[in-house]
Amino acid sequence: MNGIITPMITPLLSDDTIDKKGLKQIVEHLIAGGINGIFVLGTTGEATSLPDKLKQELIALSSEYIGGRVPLFVGITDPSPGESIALAAFSKNAGASAVVAAPPFYFTLTQPELMAYYNNLADKSVLPVFIYNMPAQTKIMIEPSTVTALSKHPNIPGIKDSSGIGPYFNTLLYLLKDNPDFSVFVGPDEMMAQAVLLGGSGGVNSGSNMFPHLFVRLYKAAAEGDLQTVRYLQQAVMEISSVIYSQGGGGYRFLKGIKKVLSAMKMTGNTMALPLHHAFKDEESDAIRKSVDRVKQILSNNTRI
Amino acid sequence: MNGIITPMITPLLSDDTIDKKGLKQIVEHLIAGGINGIFVLGTTGEATSLPDKLKQELIALSSEYIGGRVPLFVGITDPSPGESIALAAFSKNAGASAVVAAPPFYFTLTQPELMAYYNNLADKSVLPVFIYNMPAQTKIMIEPSTVTALSKHPNIPGIKDSSGIGPYFNTLLYLLKDNPDFSVFVGPDEMMAQAVLLGGSGGVNSGSNMFPHLFVRLYKAAAEGDLQTVRYLQQAVMEISSVIYSQGGGGYRFLKGIKKVLSAMKMTGNTMALPLHHAFKDEESDAIRKSVDRVKQILSNNTRI
Amino acid sequence: MNGIITPMITPLLSDDTIDKKGLKQIVEHLIAGGINGIFVLGTTGEATSLPDKLKQELIALSSEYIGGRVPLFVGITDPSPGESIALAAFSKNAGASAVVAAPPFYFTLTQPELMAYYNNLADKSVLPVFIYNMPAQTKIMIEPSTVTALSKHPNIPGIKDSSGIGPYFNTLLYLLKDNPDFSVFVGPDEMMAQAVLLGGSGGVNSGSNMFPHLFVRLYKAAAEGDLQTVRYLQQAVMEISSVIYSQGGGGYRFLKGIKKVLSAMKMTGNTMALPLHHAFKDEESDAIRKSVDRVKQILSNNTRI
Amino acid sequence: MNGIITPMITPLLSDDTIDKKGLKQIVEHLIAGGINGIFVLGTTGEATSLPDKLKQELIALSSEYIGGRVPLFVGITDPSPGESIALAAFSKNAGASAVVAAPPFYFTLTQPELMAYYNNLADKSVLPVFIYNMPAQTKIMIEPSTVTALSKHPNIPGIKDSSGIGPYFNTLLYLLKDNPDFSVFVGPDEMMAQAVLLGGSGGVNSGSNMFPHLFVRLYKAAAEGDLQTVRYLQQAVMEISSVIYSQGGGGYRFLKGIKKVLSAMKMTGNTMALPLHHAFKDEESDAIRKSVDRVKQILSNNTRI
Repeated sequence: MNGIITPMITPLLSDDTIDKKGLKQIVEHLIAGGINGIFVLGTTGEATSLPDKLKQELIALSSEYIGGRVPLFVGITDPSPGESIALAAFSKNAGASAVVAAPPFYFTLTQPELMAYYNNLADKSVLPVFIYNMPAQTKIMIEPSTVTALSKHPNIPGIKDSSGIGPYFNTLLYLLKDNPDFSVFVGPDEMMAQAVLLGGSGGVNSGSNMFPHLFVRLYKAAAEGDLQTVRYLQQAVMEISSVIYSQGGGGYRFLKGIKKVLSAMKMTGNTMALPLHHAFKDEESDAIRKSVDRVKQILSNNTRI
Repeated sequence: MNGIITPMITPLLSDDTIDKKGLKQIVEHLIAGGINGIFVLGTTGEATSLPDKLKQELIALSSEYIGGRVPLFVGITDPSPGESIALAAFSKNAGASAVVAAPPFYFTLTQPELMAYYNNLADKSVLPVFIYNMPAQTKIMIEPSTVTALSKHPNIPGIKDSSGIGPYFNTLLYLLKDNPDFSVFVGPDEMMAQAVLLGGSGGVNSGSNMFPHLFVRLYKAAAEGDLQTVRYLQQAVMEISSVIYSQGGGGYRFLKGIKKVLSAMKMTGNTMALPLHHAFKDEESDAIRKSVDRVKQILSNNTRI
Repeated sequence: MNGIITPMITPLLSDDTIDKKGLKQIVEHLIAGGINGIFVLGTTGEATSLPDKLKQELIALSSEYIGGRVPLFVGITDPSPGESIALAAFSKNAGASAVVAAPPFYFTLTQPELMAYYNNLADKSVLPVFIYNMPAQTKIMIEPSTVTALSKHPNIPGIKDSSGIGPYFNTLLYLLKDNPDFSVFVGPDEMMAQAVLLGGSGGVNSGSNMFPHLFVRLYKAAAEGDLQTVRYLQQAVMEISSVIYSQGGGGYRFLKGIKKVLSAMKMTGNTMALPLHHAFKDEESDAIRKSVDRVKQILSNNTRI
Repeated sequence: MNGIITPMITPLLSDDTIDKKGLKQIVEHLIAGGINGIFVLGTTGEATSLPDKLKQELIALSSEYIGGRVPLFVGITDPSPGESIALAAFSKNAGASAVVAAPPFYFTLTQPELMAYYNNLADKSVLPVFIYNMPAQTKIMIEPSTVTALSKHPNIPGIKDSSGIGPYFNTLLYLLKDNPDFSVFVGPDEMMAQAVLLGGSGGVNSGSNMFPHLFVRLYKAAAEGDLQTVRYLQQAVMEISSVIYSQGGGGYRFLKGIKKVLSAMKMTGNTMALPLHHAFKDEESDAIRKSVDRVKQILSNNTRI
């Protein structure tokens, strides 16, 4: 598995109602943008905030709208292993290709406990299980030796690392270099190009919700070793990161910024699931608007790339 | 509300089967011990590890076995506000008196987001909502100014603070001193006596699963200002903390130790819900056994107290 | 060793000039207040911010002004063991009674490294070495088992715990109960009374710079088990904590508040050593002023206590 | 300023005696390896563990042995601003080109306090001051907006970022792209090639103590966009990281591994400054030895690159 997988936002009409029209539009937007897979119910999808019923509805609708054109990945991260396993079963029935699980995030496990957790999950899940390293939320790093041990499980095909820690990601690449079937994806948008230049499988990048083309082109340039294009397009990624992801107080500004931009693009409304909510000041909304223009300008410069 | 509320362990036959006989025995053990309330589905109850169905079963059975003799508190902590509110409704129907909620524990909220979260929860919950400060698990301290603001909500009757941070707890006591109806409970066993000596409402102490009498007597001694008894019984609490809660690797040793002791007492088996599991070496089990004897010896010394 | 040891602020005319007149006045203020020892060059003394030369000058002057009326303790915390040992030698020559050392605070040691560090320090220091647990600054907790092992060194007479973690402090008390010559002091003002009620040796409390009488009386009440007085005076401690220590942005507000109050008392000026500096808004200065009045009022109520 | 700057280890005969012969040998080894500068008294140089006198001796000797062939950088990180400024003056007299300062590491400053700290330092330092971001030791991230503000100070020519956080480093590159005279160096060996591929100034990489040629060649390949060579040589960097930097318990294994390898190379002995010390088991020493062979084999494969 290679390329760009979009950790899709969850378009909402209200806290417990999916924006079906928005969902359909975003799915089309992503597929038209050339992305290689859609990952629902990740952090960007506000998965943990959603009631179980809504999660199931989102999986079923996403699968229907995607219609097999790209693989569907489903986040099953849950503090209860039983719930995760049940959601994997539901996902398979709904037509998903694989599931993605971060560590249980209430109790902080030791590495052996983490190993046992993933082995149990991979044994019982009816779909392949991608490991999801997300220490800022889960309070735990999945150590490289744990990942290499888990990589031998036939039902664990890869990892998504959202730690943002450069040496960690490169250690995974190095230790897993003799297992080319095991995918090593990077989470933060800002690191995707560098990760792929040195052999990473691709990115699970939130920014591809807004600008799928950008990430797809950047991925290809990096995979082909076209450094000039990489450096050029990286500017757009960093513009997104420095402005769109940096407005407003509190954390999860990247997520709030993305929903704001998708709303401006008329893809869906601006609704977030509690406990998160929007709170942009006017000048912050302005900054985001101008930044979108700068990103578009970089992307439109066809002569340059 | 005052006194000792036991954050009851969840007796299990397997990962998804309640040990009903064990549950009944523990409920009787606690009530015979004189505790003032039973709190199911807290951290000690491994709540976040349990599937939703089992949570509901546990609430219903606990309510039935308690039969109104002491109030029943139910933990509704969940990263999804919708799920928490639904569980509060279920709990009321099952006969519970109040619910207890730690902050959502995937996304880390700002203090204003936390305030909005609790206000929304208290507005929509059909039972009173106790705040549960548990930063080691949730990654966030509920700041004193947030607590004092929330204390004005008519459906928020108190807080349980499990941070273990002395100055924080005493700040709560001081800032809320003019609101005697607002309860301030302390979580860590080791701090209960001191908290009550200075005006705390009582303890939600895990050790009372094993030795309810100890905590009830210690609470009373502290509430009455009987310092000699406090100092004497505190030894038993610290024996539990230093030995029973300190065996084995990894975190949550307190929880593993309690289940081990309850199993030795024939109250229930030794089963934990994944992702946690027991892993005591022989010498560690031995240390626990001897420690139980020392605690019992302290408790049996009637001449001293 | 028992009672209240004041971690004295460092009165400054400028970043590298001691306010000698202020120093003399504060020493007299503390001794008149009945404190049991003066500890210079602790966190409250901004020790790590001061150049070596000024540290030596402060030690010499403090010793001269104290004139043997109470013991002088000197903080020798330094990331370089050699510098700490040299400062201990200087302190002895200057007439100090003991030194106090937190762990080296650049490299984060393991517990065995920490044990080796303190054993080496205690072997080479010409004065007794108190251990200083200060994880917020040093990034490391000195585990109870490390403390108990170190307590056997003949040149280590005690510990000051500024972690603020209740269960940790009580664990120290319990594990060291058979070694009554080993002192266990508590750092945070807010915890002193409770610590002493259960057997702690006393407090090394910053607030005693401003109100030595308050802490001395509170210590005595706690040591004598006079709970009514403890509860009454604790109000003044919490008033200080909740208001005087809580103004202004950033950390170390307690320190900035203390210097502000001492300046209002005409004890010394308001100068802090870089990298810290004052930045109170007018309403914050106001809040501090009013809080001082409330503390004084509590203290003046002689009929009550 | 571009290229590879070696954060040189401090060769010691004992805790307070420099290994002069070793120092001379290492200086020659590094210059022969083609490195672009030598940085003494960094983290790798165990600076904070060394007494002041030894620091001065090391600066003077290093300057003498280097003899102007490459620029000398001196770490002046100290919790006391006065000490840092004095060491900068000493360094200039000894012939150094610039100094490097991490934030004061006892008190944790706010960003405005950090800004004031660096502005004051840059105003008073007689040598240019490089900013050193090292949150694992200093407990604080220097936020991008703080760095961009400081980059305007005429006496602040650049930053070394040792955070290891990919998005942060790339944000610095992006925000400072219009200030090409401001250098942005990366600390972790593992990230150097990727940093330079996207426009970073170079690396301050510990591994260049052992294998200066490797890092110089990798830097050049990255700067020239020779991706094939980058991918090939990166293997050697990751071999070092995964094995040589990963033996033994505790932190700072990278540092212990480097001294071990330099000792095996007969460059200097194996002595570390307290509070750190070596503690390799035989099999760990073995693993390091074999890893050195693998690195050498990668480097000797001239046909490949």
